[in-house]
Amino acid sequence: MAKLRIIPLGGLGEVGKNMMAYEYGDDIMIVDTGIMFPENDMLGVDYIIPDFQYLKDKASKVKGIVITHGHEDHIGAISHVLERFNVPIYATPLTLGLIEVKLARDGLMDGAQLVTIQAGESFQVGKFKVEFAHVCHSIPDCVALGIETPEGFIVHTGDYKFDHTPVDGWPTDYAKLAEWSARGVLAMLGDSTNADKKGWTPSERVIDDAFDKVFRHAEGRIIVASFASLISRMQQVAETAERHGRKMAFAGVSMRENAKMAIRLGYLKLNEELIIPIEEALKMKPNKIVIMGTGTQGEPSSIVGRLSVGTNRQFDIKEGDTLVLSSHPIPGNEEMVSRTINRLLQRGATVIYDPVAPVHVSGHASQEEMKLMLHLVKPKYLIPVHGELRHLRQHANMAEQLGIPKENVIVVENGRVIEFEKGKMKLAERVPGGYVFVDGSRAGEISFEVVREREQLSRDGVMFVNLVVSHKDRHLMEEPEIITRGFIHPDDEDGTELLDRARQHITDRVASANGNLREELENSLKSYLHQQTRRRPMVFVVVNEV
Amino acid sequence: MAKLRIIPLGGLGEVGKNMMAYEYGDDIMIVDTGIMFPENDMLGVDYIIPDFQYLKDKASKVKGIVITHGHEDHIGAISHVLERFNVPIYATPLTLGLIEVKLARDGLMDGAQLVTIQAGESFQVGKFKVEFAHVCHSIPDCVALGIETPEGFIVHTGDYKFDHTPVDGWPTDYAKLAEWSARGVLAMLGDSTNADKKGWTPSERVIDDAFDKVFRHAEGRIIVASFASLISRMQQVAETAERHGRKMAFAGVSMRENAKMAIRLGYLKLNEELIIPIEEALKMKPNKIVIMGTGTQGEPSSIVGRLSVGTNRQFDIKEGDTLVLSSHPIPGNEEMVSRTINRLLQRGATVIYDPVAPVHVSGHASQEEMKLMLHLVKPKYLIPVHGELRHLRQHANMAEQLGIPKENVIVVENGRVIEFEKGKMKLAERVPGGYVFVDGSRAGEISFEVVREREQLSRDGVMFVNLVVSHKDRHLMEEPEIITRGFIHPDDEDGTELLDRARQHITDRVASANGNLREELENSLKSYLHQQTRRRPMVFVVVNEV
Repeated sequence: MAKLRIIPLGGLGEVGKNMMAYEYGDDIMIVDTGIMFPENDMLGVDYIIPDFQYLKDKASKVKGIVITHGHEDHIGAISHVLERFNVPIYATPLTLGLIEVKLARDGLMDGAQLVTIQAGESFQVGKFKVEFAHVCHSIPDCVALGIETPEGFIVHTGDYKFDHTPVDGWPTDYAKLAEWSARGVLAMLGDSTNADKKGWTPSERVIDDAFDKVFRHAEGRIIVASFASLISRMQQVAETAERHGRKMAFAGVSMRENAKMAIRLGYLKLNEELIIPIEEALKMKPNKIVIMGTGTQGEPSSIVGRLSVGTNRQFDIKEGDTLVLSSHPIPGNEEMVSRTINRLLQRGATVIYDPVAPVHVSGHASQEEMKLMLHLVKPKYLIPVHGELRHLRQHANMAEQLGIPKENVIVVENGRVIEFEKGKMKLAERVPGGYVFVDGSRAGEISFEVVREREQLSRDGVMFVNLVVSHKDRHLMEEPEIITRGFIHPDDEDGTELLDRARQHITDRVASANGNLREELENSLKSYLHQQTRRRPMVFVVVNEV
Repeated sequence: MAKLRIIPLGGLGEVGKNMMAYEYGDDIMIVDTGIMFPENDMLGVDYIIPDFQYLKDKASKVKGIVITHGHEDHIGAISHVLERFNVPIYATPLTLGLIEVKLARDGLMDGAQLVTIQAGESFQVGKFKVEFAHVCHSIPDCVALGIETPEGFIVHTGDYKFDHTPVDGWPTDYAKLAEWSARGVLAMLGDSTNADKKGWTPSERVIDDAFDKVFRHAEGRIIVASFASLISRMQQVAETAERHGRKMAFAGVSMRENAKMAIRLGYLKLNEELIIPIEEALKMKPNKIVIMGTGTQGEPSSIVGRLSVGTNRQFDIKEGDTLVLSSHPIPGNEEMVSRTINRLLQRGATVIYDPVAPVHVSGHASQEEMKLMLHLVKPKYLIPVHGELRHLRQHANMAEQLGIPKENVIVVENGRVIEFEKGKMKLAERVPGGYVFVDGSRAGEISFEVVREREQLSRDGVMFVNLVVSHKDRHLMEEPEIITRGFIHPDDEDGTELLDRARQHITDRVASANGNLREELENSLKSYLHQQTRRRPMVFVVVNEV
């Protein structure tokens, strides 16, 4: 008899953040295919995708991909996944629109099977019958999943909040969630991102007032930075621009493409005359325009990143500009964001960011909303997902407070299989559930070893020594040549002196060596350099016998 | 006629954070000598000290060092500074106590001139007459400076808050500040750290309630992590321990030494029987002890850092331990702190941190306190200090709201000299005001070039090629030897293949080269690797002609 197996895959410390798999007998359903951004010590890594080795080994079982919403951390790896499993992708219209933009860019639209499912509708993926319930988040057309399995009904919340006044006027579907709970919910996989935030996440509507204030006071151009997929923020900027008699332009390809798609699909509702090309906007009076672009995290390649260092092609920051960072720093990016703000100020811009004004709110439920979700859905078992261990534990604590027995809440790591059989949850084996580093747009994967080597190089640098010794008696034919980087500065007084001494040390050792010359010299030089400097550069010696 | 010159020196983006100089004619007075911790991209740097080249060039003028309080970012570089200028150090008893601990460790007490000044007292440093006014902060015995100069009276706030119920019962000296303002204050240098925080910073006393709750619920050991210099937090932990019938022990040398000194000087007031050696504490019942140690930022070398990875010598985290992080992450450390919390949870500890419970409050004034300071001191000119540009600008905005004319507020960068002559403030020249990287405990300075090289190495790695060619016709005598690190993994299928192709590329180029072989090969190989991988490792070719 088959079991229901649920597997959270690769979220860089955040469990099941980017990808989950549901497995029953010969059927596997993938939920979400997102990317993460590297942490500070993942040197030279551009982005990170889930390690879905487990699925590759069972490729024939994979029957479909279901996507909850169109943010990067849920759709960003879709091309990587689709290249392995060409199965139907099920999502709401806006989400599919954002996926289309991505697949088209990667040349993968040919043969892709995109199946539009409206919130409220249901569909079959192998043995799983999936139903979409609309939930609010910081992007429209976001859904939670109700999954009918042979073992029982599972609710997969995805990212959500309970916004009573969302920008698109479409609140979370309380009735559907209650209907699911009436059917009896075996288990819920619940978003834990904000589990340590007390109270209730403010409505997106509070941003309107902050925007109004900014637009009222700004004397020059306004530039609003946001994520390219934050369609509701575009809507809010458009409405504010209209109220204040400004035209709106998009800077950057990704934002322009997403806006175009959202307008076409009716998710971005605006007066067509409001939007003008950026070239035209730049010729207008500064107090008549607002420009939207990317770069809320200070990424060097984004519009805001380029504006902050003066390398943007189309326009520069000038005295009188007001720049709004409509976002919070993603954890780990705080330093980069701070630096970007300081640079923009230095270039003469007024910079508006939280906490200066409430120009951003979280898209995730806070503690009281998480409790509401638990009461609405009434699951027998809770599996906290989407969060670091500390968030999952907080979520678990709350569930306990609400009367869910401690033993019915399970906190797991990525790659840990959770099994359901005869209405009982238990832990099963571990499968690969880590992540894969991706370096460069199409350059492919990069191994952990290489990142470890980079870390070592970055700490104390590297030294190469080139020796020419006589074949006959191994005496030095030429002065040792030393190349070093990231260790000492060869032109400094200290550096020159140290290199002279190192050269002498090598010369002495060559004379007295009696085993593997290369190995002996490398070890001896390493100790010598550490003793001299307390640093441990990587050391390589090449011995050319002539 | 001489001018008063004020120079903020080296604070890593935070102006005048770690060191300031006051200069008049032949007299220079240094205020504070702190260190900063490196940002994430300052690879392999342990700490950062101010660049005080400007003072070195005028060494004979330096008449004294005044220290406002005993935190690392104000005293950490004292040994570096004292080695250059052996002049008297003026500070309050606790601050001098903390300096003594440091100088003793560095073997610099011999010949050091430490002059104890009580809050409220005044003293002469060259032409400057300095008066201390007690202010609250997160360490006792902290002072603001009133500086009588030939050009007028300057108020240097140092770090401060207006705590009405400080742990040591000693509020900020409002009367002294008001007295200064009555004398007429030419300029104020004001702490701007929290300029974007609305309202009023909570009193340190709010922590007591949070601690009480933690102690009430903890069933096992309690471990409180804090900064080694946070004497008032030690007082609070001691009082809570006493209330809940637990003994207290210190883990780690720096904390134990500071506590001993603070007890001796009377700044840490506690029942002597409360404190027991850590060895003894570890033998007691878990619910009878509390241990204080360092590591609030997750530093790998701290007690908490070691506990989180299981490498602490004296004890390990076990199920039932409660660990309290009584601090906020220093900007840039958020990721490290998060990781540490998750690791401690994984080892079975309950971890209490803000926002889970208010176990820490800021030591710096928020907006309303900064306004109060401005109203109390009534300076003609304001120079916002201690903050990034965005904080200084906010401070300047507030001053404007309070009626200080815009032209009387000046936002500067480190190294920018501000001059006062005949009651007028103006900007003068720039002097070196950056910072100096320090790598390793006594290893000394490290150049910017080296850190840049490390960054480059960390991004795409390095490749070395060793060639042996014939002297006569430059044909290859042996297959090229390639050593690479941080670029590709030579044992991967992709890696092996790429290296084979690179070797072939080199072989072809050697045959066709006709100029400087080394240079030609390096350039050609760089392009080839970039074209193949989109990465740009450092490339070095050594040509051995035989």
